[in-house]
Amino acid sequence: MTDTVKYQLNESDMPRQWYNIAADMPNPCMPPLHPGTGQPASPQDFAPLFPMNIIEQEVSTKRWIDIPEPVLQIYAQWRPSPLCRARRFEQTLGTPAKIYFKFEGVSPAGSHKTNSSVAQVYYNKLAGTKRITTETGAGQWGSALSYACNIFGIPLKVYMVKVSYEQKPYRKNIMQVYGAEVVPSPTDTTNAGRAILAQDPNSLGSLGIAIAEAVEDAVLREDTKYTLGSVLNHVLLHQTIIGLEAQKQFKLAGDYPDVVIGCCGGGSNFGGIAGPFLMDKVNGKEVRLVGVESAACPTLTKGHFHYDFGDSAATTPLMPMYTLGHDFTPSGIHAGGLRYHGMSPIISQLKKDNLIEAYAYNQIECFTDAVAFARAEGIIPAPEASHAIRHAVVEALRAKEEGKEKVILFNLSGHGHFDMSAYENYLAGTIEDVPLPQSSLDAAWEKIKGLPSAA
Amino acid sequence: MTDTVKYQLNESDMPRQWYNIAADMPNPCMPPLHPGTGQPASPQDFAPLFPMNIIEQEVSTKRWIDIPEPVLQIYAQWRPSPLCRARRFEQTLGTPAKIYFKFEGVSPAGSHKTNSSVAQVYYNKLAGTKRITTETGAGQWGSALSYACNIFGIPLKVYMVKVSYEQKPYRKNIMQVYGAEVVPSPTDTTNAGRAILAQDPNSLGSLGIAIAEAVEDAVLREDTKYTLGSVLNHVLLHQTIIGLEAQKQFKLAGDYPDVVIGCCGGGSNFGGIAGPFLMDKVNGKEVRLVGVESAACPTLTKGHFHYDFGDSAATTPLMPMYTLGHDFTPSGIHAGGLRYHGMSPIISQLKKDNLIEAYAYNQIECFTDAVAFARAEGIIPAPEASHAIRHAVVEALRAKEEGKEKVILFNLSGHGHFDMSAYENYLAGTIEDVPLPQSSLDAAWEKIKGLPSAA
Repeated sequence: MTDTVKYQLNESDMPRQWYNIAADMPNPCMPPLHPGTGQPASPQDFAPLFPMNIIEQEVSTKRWIDIPEPVLQIYAQWRPSPLCRARRFEQTLGTPAKIYFKFEGVSPAGSHKTNSSVAQVYYNKLAGTKRITTETGAGQWGSALSYACNIFGIPLKVYMVKVSYEQKPYRKNIMQVYGAEVVPSPTDTTNAGRAILAQDPNSLGSLGIAIAEAVEDAVLREDTKYTLGSVLNHVLLHQTIIGLEAQKQFKLAGDYPDVVIGCCGGGSNFGGIAGPFLMDKVNGKEVRLVGVESAACPTLTKGHFHYDFGDSAATTPLMPMYTLGHDFTPSGIHAGGLRYHGMSPIISQLKKDNLIEAYAYNQIECFTDAVAFARAEGIIPAPEASHAIRHAVVEALRAKEEGKEKVILFNLSGHGHFDMSAYENYLAGTIEDVPLPQSSLDAAWEKIKGLPSAA
Repeated sequence: MTDTVKYQLNESDMPRQWYNIAADMPNPCMPPLHPGTGQPASPQDFAPLFPMNIIEQEVSTKRWIDIPEPVLQIYAQWRPSPLCRARRFEQTLGTPAKIYFKFEGVSPAGSHKTNSSVAQVYYNKLAGTKRITTETGAGQWGSALSYACNIFGIPLKVYMVKVSYEQKPYRKNIMQVYGAEVVPSPTDTTNAGRAILAQDPNSLGSLGIAIAEAVEDAVLREDTKYTLGSVLNHVLLHQTIIGLEAQKQFKLAGDYPDVVIGCCGGGSNFGGIAGPFLMDKVNGKEVRLVGVESAACPTLTKGHFHYDFGDSAATTPLMPMYTLGHDFTPSGIHAGGLRYHGMSPIISQLKKDNLIEAYAYNQIECFTDAVAFARAEGIIPAPEASHAIRHAVVEALRAKEEGKEKVILFNLSGHGHFDMSAYENYLAGTIEDVPLPQSSLDAAWEKIKGLPSAA
């Protein structure tokens, strides 16, 4: 064979440390604020939610943080993940560009989320946590966390948005196969849930409600902690293994990317692949870093850099980030993981400092490129990842127009095996791009502009 | 890390030749018979169905057959597949046995089937075939063939059993994502389909009817050939890359299996992993080879070694094989790939010659072990593969009882991402083991005992 299509590292080549983006940011993130006092939140303020070893990671500015041996041992079941060259996709596009993708869909739960779930549960185990709660919408985080909790023997309760619980039974089933307790939110077992049910006994729930239930459950019980699958610094930290592996694999390939692309919901998969390349960039290397969001939820491209709540119920500490306003509700796109009103503070600060670029696309164009990719490479991408593919295509076609060689890297953050109903709708032509009027964005912004400014 | 959990070969270590089991069989297979004349079928008799380069492989006794370069290039996208050590599953079982599994679920369509679909479509392309037909039940073969036809640009028509078409839309959608035409069988476009619809306009179809439609479509059109995803010699040939890789990986591990296990429907995944070890066995190495079938369709364990038709419509050449009778209809178990009345002639002959063993299990015990496996290793197995896991557990628990070290290898032929409804039923306790009375077996046998004997 003449044409290598994947660059595979051995277990022994797996990175032994995570890279902390905070160490190399020209401007550090502003601190989160206590929602009651408006003062910078202290580590202690997070203690009811997270164990102290995770809070230490959250505030750390140390550049390299050792990956614990037991976490490496579990990573080794699917890591290092392959770096692939999409040769047939290049041919399909007729581009002179070289397109590489890092494939995170090889993990047991099918996405990059396990990189952080395994680490978070490990630290909770170490800290003596006896029980964990979380919320899940589409179910990627819920299934990754179920997998990890099962390995470490910590019982998990997942508050799953009721409409997803009913309409996406397969994700629920995976969590159950892994042994998690999954309940449709709102429930009648929390104050937050009961308050909603009192207003509307038939409520289908929302991510905001599910977060409020999972947080309340954790805060009220001494033995229980809460976990989050994106947005926070420690989650991005755990995901940097993606980019660190990719850098080693590019050395094998004798190549280096001109542009690094990741889809962007809360920011963890983009931060994971782009972070280690940011380190190169601040050290003078020429590389563009591109986050891709849904046009239905254009946080980085149309939001405001401002303090806002992390949840739509307005209960968490205030975070300095690009936000559409915490009660902004995007249309029901298939890429559930891209429907978050806010954005990781690290990614937000990097955008503010012009170290990264951001683009937003509608879902139909993304599915069109995802199907073309599947036909060329065989892999069916998750709807979230199709946004990264869309931008890779834009870059590749621009290279074709300009007659330029260009090296493109994108993160294929997960497979779409549990999203086939989205493809069914796309193929049947029943999928829609719902326009997002400026008035909706303005209305959501009105509600938060009284919160502390992050300017 | 001290404990290696996967043995990964590089692309450059991938086997360059398939191994032909026929070369080392102490007793060769008896010839297929022409269904009209009862005389041995000539290669020409198969020419309306298959191109001559595939027919040559079907009758070849050459030990090693080169894998064409373009096929290797496509294999390289997911091959070599990993050989994994199921360390946590061993701990769960508390066994002194070492359990290894070869994971074929990493292929684009999610199972071992792509090993043969890519090769078959390549040879058809070479022979000038302009169009391909096939049938599919559960959809594993249909999706693997859709993937391959798309790569080589050959239009594919899949006759999908109507009840599956309606109840398993996701498999249909995958085939459509890969660009195949999928129609619910029976159709009104073939004589075979029209005959059924005339009797019963609401017929939900059967694999037998779908085969008859796909064959008729191919035979009546000069430009069209038919493909089959199991049973035949050339399909087993293509699958031997599984066992050949496993042998190289065991060298890396410094180990060798005492027992090699594969689930057994038509026989191709079992033949693929066990074949190369059979070569060792006939050369004096001690290794047991175990095919595992469903107790609902116990071909090797309760069938007769006899000539029978390959399809339930009784139109194909007669094959010498273990069979339950071509009109035997197994209960509707979730492992659709194990519902075949017959068995690969090669596997059948090896069983007759006591070179392999066979066991049959009910589906509930298989799902129980599959869930235990998923909790330990993270991977959700296809229902078919759960039968191989079940027997691996039996071997591992026996080793525990006997206090013996033992090295177990099984083939994890595919993932279960498109079979979550089966897990849903299992978890809900609504899955059943339907007893198979001897009288049903006797009745099916009565109908074929007038066919030529294979004794």
